[in-house]
Amino acid sequence: MILTVTLNTALDITYRIPSLRPGSSHRVSEVTERPGGKGVNVARVLAALGHEVTVTGFSGGTTGRVLRERLTEVPRLTDALVPVSGTTRRTIAVVDARSGDTTQLNEPGPAVSHAEWSAFQEVYEDLLASASAVALCGSLPPGVPVGAYASLIRTARAAGVPTLLDTSGSALRRGVAGRPDILKPNADELAELTGSHEPLRATQDARRRGAGTVVASLGPQGLLALTPDARWRATPPTGLHGNPTGAGDSAVAGLLSALVEHQPWPTRLSRAVALSAATVLSPVAGEFDRAAYEELLDKVVVTGKATAA
Amino acid sequence: MILTVTLNTALDITYRIPSLRPGSSHRVSEVTERPGGKGVNVARVLAALGHEVTVTGFSGGTTGRVLRERLTEVPRLTDALVPVSGTTRRTIAVVDARSGDTTQLNEPGPAVSHAEWSAFQEVYEDLLASASAVALCGSLPPGVPVGAYASLIRTARAAGVPTLLDTSGSALRRGVAGRPDILKPNADELAELTGSHEPLRATQDARRRGAGTVVASLGPQGLLALTPDARWRATPPTGLHGNPTGAGDSAVAGLLSALVEHQPWPTRLSRAVALSAATVLSPVAGEFDRAAYEELLDKVVVTGKATAA
Repeated sequence: MILTVTLNTALDITYRIPSLRPGSSHRVSEVTERPGGKGVNVARVLAALGHEVTVTGFSGGTTGRVLRERLTEVPRLTDALVPVSGTTRRTIAVVDARSGDTTQLNEPGPAVSHAEWSAFQEVYEDLLASASAVALCGSLPPGVPVGAYASLIRTARAAGVPTLLDTSGSALRRGVAGRPDILKPNADELAELTGSHEPLRATQDARRRGAGTVVASLGPQGLLALTPDARWRATPPTGLHGNPTGAGDSAVAGLLSALVEHQPWPTRLSRAVALSAATVLSPVAGEFDRAAYEELLDKVVVTGKATAA
Repeated sequence: MILTVTLNTALDITYRIPSLRPGSSHRVSEVTERPGGKGVNVARVLAALGHEVTVTGFSGGTTGRVLRERLTEVPRLTDALVPVSGTTRRTIAVVDARSGDTTQLNEPGPAVSHAEWSAFQEVYEDLLASASAVALCGSLPPGVPVGAYASLIRTARAAGVPTLLDTSGSALRRGVAGRPDILKPNADELAELTGSHEPLRATQDARRRGAGTVVASLGPQGLLALTPDARWRATPPTGLHGNPTGAGDSAVAGLLSALVEHQPWPTRLSRAVALSAATVLSPVAGEFDRAAYEELLDKVVVTGKATAA
């Protein structure tokens, strides 16, 4: 199975309103609710692609209960979340029907105790025994050490399980030092990590900081990947419009899906770009349009160039 | 006991953020959560004043469960909510720390079935047997007939229990025809009901529509009451600044508290105005500052004038 780690899981709530006016009262016309946190989103896409996937991380409180109830509805997904005494956060996405803009309100995560963090590390080590790959995704809740990802990456390497890291800020800066096999930052995260807004230079810098391969997601420009021995560009067809929510998580799922099938980089990247684009095109935020995905797979252009080792 | 009816209960969530920028992502710095819906707020104030109070209405789903758990923590409050298969709504108040403005997002209530509405009416009739007064508060969830309040008021009258109605829109327009003993609109609700923005004229009109007494809340100007035989003004000290959330519900609690003690109108009105002002002054939205309440009680100015019967 593929393991995804979401230390800061969330119950993602979407409100549709006619128009957001700060300082006013609004009736919400439509409410949707689903399990979230980047690793959970990645797992849902992997399960939809037919992979067996296990979700771990933390969950607690009423929102944690709702999250876990909803996860039971996803076929091929196993819930191995570790209970915490705190309450799983909610995120609220307020979609303004007039402008199409989304205003995001993210609760802080529950405080994780030292004992809970230790309990998680044990569960994680046990799960690695049957994992073909592990994705470490999203922010760290309060109480989890900032070097958490570096330590989880080392544990996975000791178990012979390839790792993918997708996070931001100090969790990214400290995590990359653990030498993940794949680092998947977006343009902002890459610039924050390296100080460079030039994607190729920043990607090279991120590799030097410890990542085996860096796959940078550049929005509508697709992916730029720097492996130990080549540089790749994977570009979707132009003019795709829609909601980018979850596109990055779908890209991670595409990379992992092809990785565990031992596919070469061009296949991994076209799968990631096609899934990402099919997520942008989906009418439901964070879901992917399967027909679009299959059609897009052949339309992604991948170009590569060998680099000096 | 005093009975409060909240057909559309809510879990009231408050988010504090540094500054609300539509279209952006925000980290919520502080989350508070408490049982809500106008009748629930009224009940909490009554319980704090030392009254035995029973809460009825509907609750369901996960949010309903949280709401009921939290109600058990309130001394002197009995939970007689009727379960529904739908889910109790959430309301989100987003407080912008920079401007002090509150942006309100209210979910729609759960759809109430015909059977659930019938079950409620039976529970309500049973509760009236031991009620000294009943407050009917807030909006109607989908599925509850628009004439609900008129029918509940008639049932209470048949049981000899005085009624107070505090609602808006069509629920108010149809409810007032049931002839509540007290109608407590604010200035906007009164104008919407009568078409007049002139408080005295509008209050007279509202009485003609069926209310025994109309107590109009006019914000910082206090209350204007028109009883069957007199007209009263009750005014708080000037220059009180704070958050008006819940001030109207506190006024309702003040009126009921003095009503069940058979206090005359000047006492009812000064209690309502003092509680309302002490709620505005409280640092926590919807709570009242007890010391301020006791101090304000003597500072409310009540003037009256007999009217022709």
